[in-house]
Amino acid sequence: MPTTADLAAFERELLAEIPLARAMELRVRGYADDELVIAAPLPPNVNDKGCAFGGSLVSLLTLAGWGVVTLKLADLGRNCDVYVQDSHVRYVAPVWADFTARARLADGESWPAFADALAAKGRARIRVHCRVPLADGGDACTLEARFVAIARAS
Amino acid sequence: MPTTADLAAFERELLAEIPLARAMELRVRGYADDELVIAAPLPPNVNDKGCAFGGSLVSLLTLAGWGVVTLKLADLGRNCDVYVQDSHVRYVAPVWADFTARARLADGESWPAFADALAAKGRARIRVHCRVPLADGGDACTLEARFVAIARAS
Repeated sequence: MPTTADLAAFERELLAEIPLARAMELRVRGYADDELVIAAPLPPNVNDKGCAFGGSLVSLLTLAGWGVVTLKLADLGRNCDVYVQDSHVRYVAPVWADFTARARLADGESWPAFADALAAKGRARIRVHCRVPLADGGDACTLEARFVAIARAS
Repeated sequence: MPTTADLAAFERELLAEIPLARAMELRVRGYADDELVIAAPLPPNVNDKGCAFGGSLVSLLTLAGWGVVTLKLADLGRNCDVYVQDSHVRYVAPVWADFTARARLADGESWPAFADALAAKGRARIRVHCRVPLADGGDACTLEARFVAIARAS
């Protein structure tokens, strides 16, 4: 499980290397119960209607999904590049306040199977499930995405 | 078909009302053959690997899809709000240069059927197909999305 220092380093990297993450004022909120939580304030992520811009929602969700895979690989001591391959996004309800994206493995996926495939073939795919929750616990937006990890030449 | 003045006004609105569109340095490039073209430079949209950030790609694709519906409704003289409902994104190849998103109706959809449904019920759904082309004509990224238009109380 990533430490507080790991999460702080991950946030620094995102903000240093991805200008849009800076524009969104993204913050890594925490990691608990196998879930990575990333937050963004509403003002820099607003649309013409005054609620959260769909591009900001899907960007935060995709970064959370990418983050949960990247942090797990670091935890496993694997040096990989991680790419998103495809995603399915549902916009369920508008978001009128600051928001978070929560990312975890999709149902039916397992980290040990992912690690074994990566060790055997040097690349492996994994699906993640990410959501922007509403204050009442429902979903404002969900993203199901598939990522591929490719071992770097060492 | 939207005029050059319509497109310039649409770009001004996007940049005025959506901070992330400004951060991406989005530009409306043109409209031809029923296709809206929006562009973004690479530097503000880069990721940790030096290619286009997935969040920027999907944001530009979603805005292009939203734009093609919004511009058509203006052309029809309809006063509506337009929302994205869901989307499926495929990331096919990395993008190492400035890029454009091209949006058009999805196969099997028609503007007259959309306009008729909107006139009858005050709301209507439509699917669009958007792509970020590569220099060789292939796709770097595709998005198939469903939008809903809801007539504003007049």
